Amino acid sequence: MNYFSSKFKLGILGGGQLGKMLLNDTRKFDIYTSVLDASNEAPCKIACNEFHIGDLMDYDAVYNFGKQVDVLTFEIENININALEDLEKEGVKVYPSSKTLRTIQNKVTQKLFYIDNGIPTADFTRFAYTNEIEDAIDNGGLKLPFVWKSAQFGYDGNGVKVVRKMEDLSGLPNVECLTESLIPFKNELAVIVVRNANGDMATYPVVEMEFHPEANQVEYVICPARIDMEVALKATEIALRVSKAYNHVGLLAVEMFQTQNDEIIVNEVAPRPHNSGHQTIEASYTSQFEQHLRAILNLPLGSTESKAAGVMVNLVGAEGHTGDVIYKNIEEIMAMPGVTPHIYGKKETRPFRKMGHVTIVSPSVDEARRIAEEVKKTIKVISE
Amino acid sequence: MNYFSSKFKLGILGGGQLGKMLLNDTRKFDIYTSVLDASNEAPCKIACNEFHIGDLMDYDAVYNFGKQVDVLTFEIENININALEDLEKEGVKVYPSSKTLRTIQNKVTQKLFYIDNGIPTADFTRFAYTNEIEDAIDNGGLKLPFVWKSAQFGYDGNGVKVVRKMEDLSGLPNVECLTESLIPFKNELAVIVVRNANGDMATYPVVEMEFHPEANQVEYVICPARIDMEVALKATEIALRVSKAYNHVGLLAVEMFQTQNDEIIVNEVAPRPHNSGHQTIEASYTSQFEQHLRAILNLPLGSTESKAAGVMVNLVGAEGHTGDVIYKNIEEIMAMPGVTPHIYGKKETRPFRKMGHVTIVSPSVDEARRIAEEVKKTIKVISE
Repeated sequence: MNYFSSKFKLGILGGGQLGKMLLNDTRKFDIYTSVLDASNEAPCKIACNEFHIGDLMDYDAVYNFGKQVDVLTFEIENININALEDLEKEGVKVYPSSKTLRTIQNKVTQKLFYIDNGIPTADFTRFAYTNEIEDAIDNGGLKLPFVWKSAQFGYDGNGVKVVRKMEDLSGLPNVECLTESLIPFKNELAVIVVRNANGDMATYPVVEMEFHPEANQVEYVICPARIDMEVALKATEIALRVSKAYNHVGLLAVEMFQTQNDEIIVNEVAPRPHNSGHQTIEASYTSQFEQHLRAILNLPLGSTESKAAGVMVNLVGAEGHTGDVIYKNIEEIMAMPGVTPHIYGKKETRPFRKMGHVTIVSPSVDEARRIAEEVKKTIKVISE
Repeated sequence: MNYFSSKFKLGILGGGQLGKMLLNDTRKFDIYTSVLDASNEAPCKIACNEFHIGDLMDYDAVYNFGKQVDVLTFEIENININALEDLEKEGVKVYPSSKTLRTIQNKVTQKLFYIDNGIPTADFTRFAYTNEIEDAIDNGGLKLPFVWKSAQFGYDGNGVKVVRKMEDLSGLPNVECLTESLIPFKNELAVIVVRNANGDMATYPVVEMEFHPEANQVEYVICPARIDMEVALKATEIALRVSKAYNHVGLLAVEMFQTQNDEIIVNEVAPRPHNSGHQTIEASYTSQFEQHLRAILNLPLGSTESKAAGVMVNLVGAEGHTGDVIYKNIEEIMAMPGVTPHIYGKKETRPFRKMGHVTIVSPSVDEARRIAEEVKKTIKVISE
């Protein structure tokens, strides 16, 4: 198929910020794009050729949309998978496949998949409902502390909570879930693996993620990770194993823990462009978004090497501020060397809401990290 | 003024490919954009918030459009300047200013400006009409060979011709024009200068341009130019002098000749993102498009340093091909390291029509130049 022809149509399920950054790179290749999203205010609306409104969990909406495109991809995991399966049967290329997505969409299934495939992951217990956890603790089947995760996807960390004492359980939704041993880790790492339909594979350098202690959101992504070469190689090798097990096409972001003993344990994966790869826009020869396009269109993969070190800072709403957003001191951070803000264009801020990100590139990773802290201290996402 | 507020509106005159690349970078800052172009098929239509149809040479069209925006910029020089002047008087920020554009818009006025400001430029003679040139040659006032340039802007080199013999004059439009001494140059160089309203200035590294001998179009732009440091410093110094003389705000691309004696002579300038800066998207810490936005919004300038060496190859239609375009072997060039195609999305190709460009980045400029030649030999812009 000629992707550079005017007859070709790429469908994207989800019209959010990831989709918008993906659309930016479709412009380079002049690819005709069509987007489906539930909201008429979706960020993607401005940058696609066609915009359709529909619920991504609705079979008919996804199926009817998918029938009109040649290749179908997604920027969010909450999609009606039965529709994807039927589209695949009828010849639409769905990348990543419905099979990959079905395994990933439910965190219990995802954990079982790792066990079936001999991939190291934290011990866990599954529960049909959150309210069964208290009994398990009472009768000694489960010990505090642990990490509670809802089986279905949350957003901005809402589906994950560290439970240290019984009271932490209150307020959690009563849904299918799992509890995981709390891993005392040295570092959280991630590797983005890319694979095209031909089977060509490549990995981006290992990145290191620093989390905000309260919000459970990534605060800094640091590329390359400041870890030993052996640990980096081990993390890359495990990420490749995960990717091969999924046999996925497109990007797969593999999040991992580096334990106190330098073991690598897989935390979870995302089959799409990912927060841990935003710095690739400025720091890599090929951005993760261009790379995802190359993979799903079965084009040759681009170089995953870095032109410079990159650090990404998430811009989240400050505590105590809800309402029309202001990016206080944004001009100050733009005066710092190698700093590029990416503002997502959400009108209202609220505490910990993801409002954008800032990338810092520098020949030196330590210098980039230093400037990132300066950025973090300087810019404030507040309300008017 | 808060450019990151939803009340701010940036106006762009011209909806072509340069505007589209500029719009891509407005997404990073979530800037609200409005575009005016004569064609409903303009490339910018897909990426702006508002699109208006109107003739850029028409006073009312430009004036009425400009009244609705806070800052007005352009991606093409052929604009009704009287409208810009009146908008400035009424408080619209027009960057670059109408005064800068008025001087540049007519090549005779541009040459006189260089002379008035002591900026080295090739000797020239002005003519009210092209048909006066023959008489001047006949009576010994002008000698062959020379370069003929129409005073008003041409596109894709149509306003420029090397005249070696009398017959070369035939077929030229009978318009206001100038003739310039043919400079036997070693290199064509360019420097992009950026200046914001505060007066902060910065220059990108000197680039070297290799021209296609027949089409008079840039074939390769090479960054950094492979020239002596002294020559690079002299070119940068002269570009800064030109910029200061214009007192411009935004980008100014200064094209120069390096003579056989290593003198630097200014050829012409463009007050906007320019073909000689396309490699900055991949090779520089700040792309020329982001930089132009920073300058016209009076934000701090970004770093003009390079992350890697970059070479840009223009993709032009092959001779003998007119019709629906095909990018033959595009997948082969995408398999080469550090190669990114930018396809402009024009449906029809014709000989020498500018259809896109390809950027090659590499730690080594010689390696990037080698791959660029490979790219040039491999990809063919042909018709179906």
